[in-house]
Amino acid sequence: MPNILIINGPNLNLIGTREKTVYGDTSYESIMADAVAYGSELGLAVEHVQSNSEGALIDIIHRAPGKYAGAIINPGGYTHTSVALRDAIASVSIPFVEVHLSNIHAREDFRKTSLTAPVSVGQISGFGKHAYRLGLMAVKGVLEG
Amino acid sequence: MPNILIINGPNLNLIGTREKTVYGDTSYESIMADAVAYGSELGLAVEHVQSNSEGALIDIIHRAPGKYAGAIINPGGYTHTSVALRDAIASVSIPFVEVHLSNIHAREDFRKTSLTAPVSVGQISGFGKHAYRLGLMAVKGVLEG
Amino acid sequence: MPNILIINGPNLNLIGTREKTVYGDTSYESIMADAVAYGSELGLAVEHVQSNSEGALIDIIHRAPGKYAGAIINPGGYTHTSVALRDAIASVSIPFVEVHLSNIHAREDFRKTSLTAPVSVGQISGFGKHAYRLGLMAVKGVLEG
Amino acid sequence: MPNILIINGPNLNLIGTREKTVYGDTSYESIMADAVAYGSELGLAVEHVQSNSEGALIDIIHRAPGKYAGAIINPGGYTHTSVALRDAIASVSIPFVEVHLSNIHAREDFRKTSLTAPVSVGQISGFGKHAYRLGLMAVKGVLEG
Amino acid sequence: MPNILIINGPNLNLIGTREKTVYGDTSYESIMADAVAYGSELGLAVEHVQSNSEGALIDIIHRAPGKYAGAIINPGGYTHTSVALRDAIASVSIPFVEVHLSNIHAREDFRKTSLTAPVSVGQISGFGKHAYRLGLMAVKGVLEG
Amino acid sequence: MPNILIINGPNLNLIGTREKTVYGDTSYESIMADAVAYGSELGLAVEHVQSNSEGALIDIIHRAPGKYAGAIINPGGYTHTSVALRDAIASVSIPFVEVHLSNIHAREDFRKTSLTAPVSVGQISGFGKHAYRLGLMAVKGVLEG
Amino acid sequence: MPNILIINGPNLNLIGTREKTVYGDTSYESIMADAVAYGSELGLAVEHVQSNSEGALIDIIHRAPGKYAGAIINPGGYTHTSVALRDAIASVSIPFVEVHLSNIHAREDFRKTSLTAPVSVGQISGFGKHAYRLGLMAVKGVLEG
Amino acid sequence: MPNILIINGPNLNLIGTREKTVYGDTSYESIMADAVAYGSELGLAVEHVQSNSEGALIDIIHRAPGKYAGAIINPGGYTHTSVALRDAIASVSIPFVEVHLSNIHAREDFRKTSLTAPVSVGQISGFGKHAYRLGLMAVKGVLEG
Amino acid sequence: MPNILIINGPNLNLIGTREKTVYGDTSYESIMADAVAYGSELGLAVEHVQSNSEGALIDIIHRAPGKYAGAIINPGGYTHTSVALRDAIASVSIPFVEVHLSNIHAREDFRKTSLTAPVSVGQISGFGKHAYRLGLMAVKGVLEG
Amino acid sequence: MPNILIINGPNLNLIGTREKTVYGDTSYESIMADAVAYGSELGLAVEHVQSNSEGALIDIIHRAPGKYAGAIINPGGYTHTSVALRDAIASVSIPFVEVHLSNIHAREDFRKTSLTAPVSVGQISGFGKHAYRLGLMAVKGVLEG
Amino acid sequence: MPNILIINGPNLNLIGTREKTVYGDTSYESIMADAVAYGSELGLAVEHVQSNSEGALIDIIHRAPGKYAGAIINPGGYTHTSVALRDAIASVSIPFVEVHLSNIHAREDFRKTSLTAPVSVGQISGFGKHAYRLGLMAVKGVLEG
Amino acid sequence: MPNILIINGPNLNLIGTREKTVYGDTSYESIMADAVAYGSELGLAVEHVQSNSEGALIDIIHRAPGKYAGAIINPGGYTHTSVALRDAIASVSIPFVEVHLSNIHAREDFRKTSLTAPVSVGQISGFGKHAYRLGLMAVKGVLEG
Repeated sequence: MPNILIINGPNLNLIGTREKTVYGDTSYESIMADAVAYGSELGLAVEHVQSNSEGALIDIIHRAPGKYAGAIINPGGYTHTSVALRDAIASVSIPFVEVHLSNIHAREDFRKTSLTAPVSVGQISGFGKHAYRLGLMAVKGVLEG
Repeated sequence: MPNILIINGPNLNLIGTREKTVYGDTSYESIMADAVAYGSELGLAVEHVQSNSEGALIDIIHRAPGKYAGAIINPGGYTHTSVALRDAIASVSIPFVEVHLSNIHAREDFRKTSLTAPVSVGQISGFGKHAYRLGLMAVKGVLEG
Repeated sequence: MPNILIINGPNLNLIGTREKTVYGDTSYESIMADAVAYGSELGLAVEHVQSNSEGALIDIIHRAPGKYAGAIINPGGYTHTSVALRDAIASVSIPFVEVHLSNIHAREDFRKTSLTAPVSVGQISGFGKHAYRLGLMAVKGVLEG
Repeated sequence: MPNILIINGPNLNLIGTREKTVYGDTSYESIMADAVAYGSELGLAVEHVQSNSEGALIDIIHRAPGKYAGAIINPGGYTHTSVALRDAIASVSIPFVEVHLSNIHAREDFRKTSLTAPVSVGQISGFGKHAYRLGLMAVKGVLEG
Repeated sequence: MPNILIINGPNLNLIGTREKTVYGDTSYESIMADAVAYGSELGLAVEHVQSNSEGALIDIIHRAPGKYAGAIINPGGYTHTSVALRDAIASVSIPFVEVHLSNIHAREDFRKTSLTAPVSVGQISGFGKHAYRLGLMAVKGVLEG
Repeated sequence: MPNILIINGPNLNLIGTREKTVYGDTSYESIMADAVAYGSELGLAVEHVQSNSEGALIDIIHRAPGKYAGAIINPGGYTHTSVALRDAIASVSIPFVEVHLSNIHAREDFRKTSLTAPVSVGQISGFGKHAYRLGLMAVKGVLEG
Repeated sequence: MPNILIINGPNLNLIGTREKTVYGDTSYESIMADAVAYGSELGLAVEHVQSNSEGALIDIIHRAPGKYAGAIINPGGYTHTSVALRDAIASVSIPFVEVHLSNIHAREDFRKTSLTAPVSVGQISGFGKHAYRLGLMAVKGVLEG
Repeated sequence: MPNILIINGPNLNLIGTREKTVYGDTSYESIMADAVAYGSELGLAVEHVQSNSEGALIDIIHRAPGKYAGAIINPGGYTHTSVALRDAIASVSIPFVEVHLSNIHAREDFRKTSLTAPVSVGQISGFGKHAYRLGLMAVKGVLEG
Repeated sequence: MPNILIINGPNLNLIGTREKTVYGDTSYESIMADAVAYGSELGLAVEHVQSNSEGALIDIIHRAPGKYAGAIINPGGYTHTSVALRDAIASVSIPFVEVHLSNIHAREDFRKTSLTAPVSVGQISGFGKHAYRLGLMAVKGVLEG
Repeated sequence: MPNILIINGPNLNLIGTREKTVYGDTSYESIMADAVAYGSELGLAVEHVQSNSEGALIDIIHRAPGKYAGAIINPGGYTHTSVALRDAIASVSIPFVEVHLSNIHAREDFRKTSLTAPVSVGQISGFGKHAYRLGLMAVKGVLEG
Repeated sequence: MPNILIINGPNLNLIGTREKTVYGDTSYESIMADAVAYGSELGLAVEHVQSNSEGALIDIIHRAPGKYAGAIINPGGYTHTSVALRDAIASVSIPFVEVHLSNIHAREDFRKTSLTAPVSVGQISGFGKHAYRLGLMAVKGVLEG
Repeated sequence: MPNILIINGPNLNLIGTREKTVYGDTSYESIMADAVAYGSELGLAVEHVQSNSEGALIDIIHRAPGKYAGAIINPGGYTHTSVALRDAIASVSIPFVEVHLSNIHAREDFRKTSLTAPVSVGQISGFGKHAYRLGLMAVKGVLEG
């Protein structure tokens, strides 16, 4: 049963309390709990981690290959600004799937460009609370080839 | 059992024979067959249609609400150039999920912008033959709220 | 009594049912009927045609000079993307007046530029259901010098 | 019988003597006289004013609501450069219709963008001496709903 | 007791009646009265002037050094378009503080750039009716070193 | 004797009657007849087809490899706007030579960029009625290596 | 007596020793001491915190609503690059006032755009050591309505 | 002896007192007196006028052809922003020579583009107090052919 | 038998030894020999010259009209950067055909724009060793009208 | 009697025979002869040199300070493209005046920017055959202070 | 013997294991050991530190002047995005030399701009494992004047 | 003992006399003498050449592989404008190291982009008279692998 890590970036800890019209009102904890449960259904052992710090996220990515077969990343605001995060993903050998709760292509112009998507297998954007389920299904597909 | 329409745009009929390093070597027919079967597992009655013509695609979109509860669209090259297709999607009341076989964010710059994604519920980009399965799961999630 | 052709582009067939806050709720058919009646008041024999296909619209433009003294065109989403439509208008000898139901200058940035207006006599943008009446009056003025 | 004010901006006083290949050779006075007469046919009491001064035009716009039910404005060169004029139009409650004698979309690139059109009901561009007639008909339509 | 001049640009005379959701509903006169009273508390003799004319504003700026120790300017729409106003401020020796009632950085893109701020001591943007109080406090700070 | 297909895009059917100062006054039919005759001299069996529809052109490209050894394409206005046409050319295995009657590099800025040239063997632009002869000679050279 | 938090971003700890021609020579500590004292005069209980870490600043912002009625933020270099910080400010319900010691509009082009100002109540830029006093007065005004 | 009008735009009245490192310390009056005297040497009857108002400058330009054979214009800050001034110059039949005291090509980027130069005979930029002498010599050359 | 000059710009002397994957491995000398021979078949007396110096190329262009009826130019890297070369071509009365061995439209972005093509009759780009043959055929066509 | 060098760049040797509608029909030789004679009237010993080579022009500029008190340069097409020429002018201590026969601000966009003007005393653009006379008068003024 | 600090930014800890075709296969530890040994040869006491955190890097820079005479910095992905890091370098008085293992000018466009280089003494880019040796030699040269 | 060629571009011959605040006051000759001596220490036989001519520099690059094992190039102003020089470097098989005396990343924007660096092994920018020593050490490292 492969281990999968969900890495959540800045401000995602506030989901459910923050800007509800954009992100919905399901809490961060229940979205993660749902992802773990759904992963289990798919035969994936899912863990998750969240940090607001770019450097801490890079550290997490560096350590991931030792333990995990694949990763899902929601880089939050760093999606659009962090070359360092992009380089971290490109530095490690396991597949990454990029996930966003909101449809970033329907928001401000500066949210339409992702620095991390080009080094990920693909990007899933929109679909709110369903996004992580889709990410897990995607990572499973990628691992199975 | 809700009806779902998969609408495929230009050149997708050639998948499996065309630019295999980009799009993989599974044929268009078997990808669609897999989508129909998978939809059935999810409790969705899936049909599919393909056209190389922008106008024909618009006609298809216009007629969709009468029969389908939701749609998946892979607009191919029209993704990046067609305001008319965008307007067609915005004109109808059923939800659209945008799907791409290749990771468009990792390709030429002109493929990074989607005119249709902002009027869709969300976008799934990359994941090759898994893309339509993800799209069906997404549309199911959207329909169930 | 000069013949005038109104050429409507993609999605205009849905007017009255589509995005009513943008385009109003008068149906396409009644707007066209009003235009024909108003044309008659002005001494113009008005016909109209609609297509969602860029190629079909070009064919219509090519055939227009044989029968019509002038034309009104609402190119819809093709306004902003179609060099081919522009070339078609420039290819024929009768005057074209460009008409838009909504005020395109007050919408998204990509709607502010028209590829077809520079080869038309002029552009009328906004004024909803009155737009075609204004277009007919304009084309009459142009024909009378 | 509603009062309508036509506000003409810089250099329009020279129409008929200035750049005739662009603007035609009908004099400013006769174009205005024609507009007043045509307004009368439509049941509109038309007055007109011209100034080369941005500040004076703003003052005129500020005072308009007290007396006029609607306005037509040809902002001349200020169309493309004046945020202040835009703010003045947005500040008052009566509808404005933007009018241009020449087809600004067929001229230099800097004439293709209008700062004032987004706060007007719509824009009529081209059609030479017929432009004000079209503007009056448009403003009438807007007032009548 | 130093004299301070508040210079208000185009459309500010309409504050309180104009676009209330953007600018609030306190009238221009009462905002100015409040500024004079507050200046008095700070030990500043405050006068104010308003014009919609770019040229008149430049004339006012030219004459200011003879009588005033500092100035507050709200250039309105000219903020973003007037090199001439910028040059006028740069031409005189007293300090200018730029003030905006609305948060210009949160509005249209063309309002985000100020031609006059680089030649002012600083810029205060947002805070509605409090803006001039902040401006007076700022100019007092600047004068006291 | 290899079969070669000449594919002509929108508005090319009007050559000889349309914008003669740009495209010359030789008719479409006689240019095509000349190309067939010249192809025959070169040992090429030349056929030709024209469509104003982007979708129809894509269909034609898709079917070409079965019958033709190479193709000449004049995409007309679609040259500058059609990612879908580019993808179609990239999807098939036979060589394409892009041809333009007018020198597109000497015209409007939007005509200077070709989306289709990067997936063609090369581009021939200008030379009027000689363009197709040059294209045939080029395709022959390419086929002979 | 409402609690107010001043949040200072990267490099502000060096004020008074760093680039004195840009930022003045008053030390960070004395500027903060002055702000606390001035806040006291205004009836505000002021605390302050500084961090060079984007992630730590986000954490601070997330915790602020529990204890503080409003905040002043000087995001330093992150002003121009951090979508994550912008999202953090937008995520919490208390008002933020953006403050800069130097006049950022008079410096390098990349300092003229603020990602955080659009989600703040307003921005105060320039005025050196007076900037925080102005920020406190602004936040007091905002809290009092 | 032909009459020549020198038209000076905003802020030029302050020359000699304003930004002396940029514009030198010769007063406006003495520069104009020198121009009149030098014009007399060249056989030109020189008059001069200055205004800070864009509208007043346009009025001056409109009236110039009746009395003057040619004009020199220093549009100051309006050089870079005024389409209306450009249109005024294009509207009248006498030749205009554009003059700048400072070398605008060596200053801020926004001063490098002139809207008025393309409708003038030519531009003289730099050379300080010598600029008007050069302008007079230029206008004389133009008048003599 | 008209004389034709082939003018080759910088680095073309290395063809056959340089970047063979881009330019092929036929030597410069044999490509030129082939062009002379082919010209002879066409009834053209072909000469050729090569220089790495922009100035020398301009000199060659200036002297060409005296002896040659037409010219083929491969400006190499100067294609994209030399206004001077463009002016030289525009200065002389004989027709120029621009030729490139590689398909410049399929390479780096800075190679997609040609400063010299707009003043040439047309451009032939791609086709490797066949390019000069096509150029000769083109120039023959142009000379024959 | 100070020595002045006129340095003419690429293609200026063809003046009088080249693009006469742009540059007039006075020959290069007679324009230079006129400049020498006029210089003599002004008390300047004028010499002139022309080269089509950027490198040769740089060499000429390097050697100029030894013999000449000032220089006039018409860099032709290099005006817009040569950083090296700009650096050469900035490297030497004598004043340079930039001169253009045509009004470069009224031509193609790429001719509106000068790399050399910012390191020259000023620029004179337009005025045809009078341009060098104006340049000489300007350089005289600069030398006399 | 002066102390020198080498500061390595994000992802550099993975050198030797990460993207070997870009960065080579020498491990981070051995590159640092080589730098220390080489520094010793040059008479420099070299220490090194690495962090993936922007904030931690700023803290390190702030503390450097107390102990080190100069610094070498490889800011990794922060090179292109961090105004805060730039400000930190500008805030301290010791010289910084910027170093990159790969040739950033030969990679993606977003890697071509460095925010930190303008406040460093200079930049060394490319040369793989030799880069730090070059950096040490550079910093030695700078310290010796 | 490998031969190394230092190739210096335009204006470098004036180093030591030219713009000393930018380039220092060590003469060109002594910088080159130092480089030769330092090369000797490193076991490199260093020669140097300088030219102001782009074409001559290309000729030098073409001939270099026959005699030299590697090259250092300071392309001066051609760094930013010469595609031809870039192509020359790419055409030859020996490694090139790009060197600049001044820190080009800290100067005008147009100096921040190098056309030649992407085809060089790397770039060294800044460090004044030490730059060539660094370049020699770099080229030695590259040759030794």
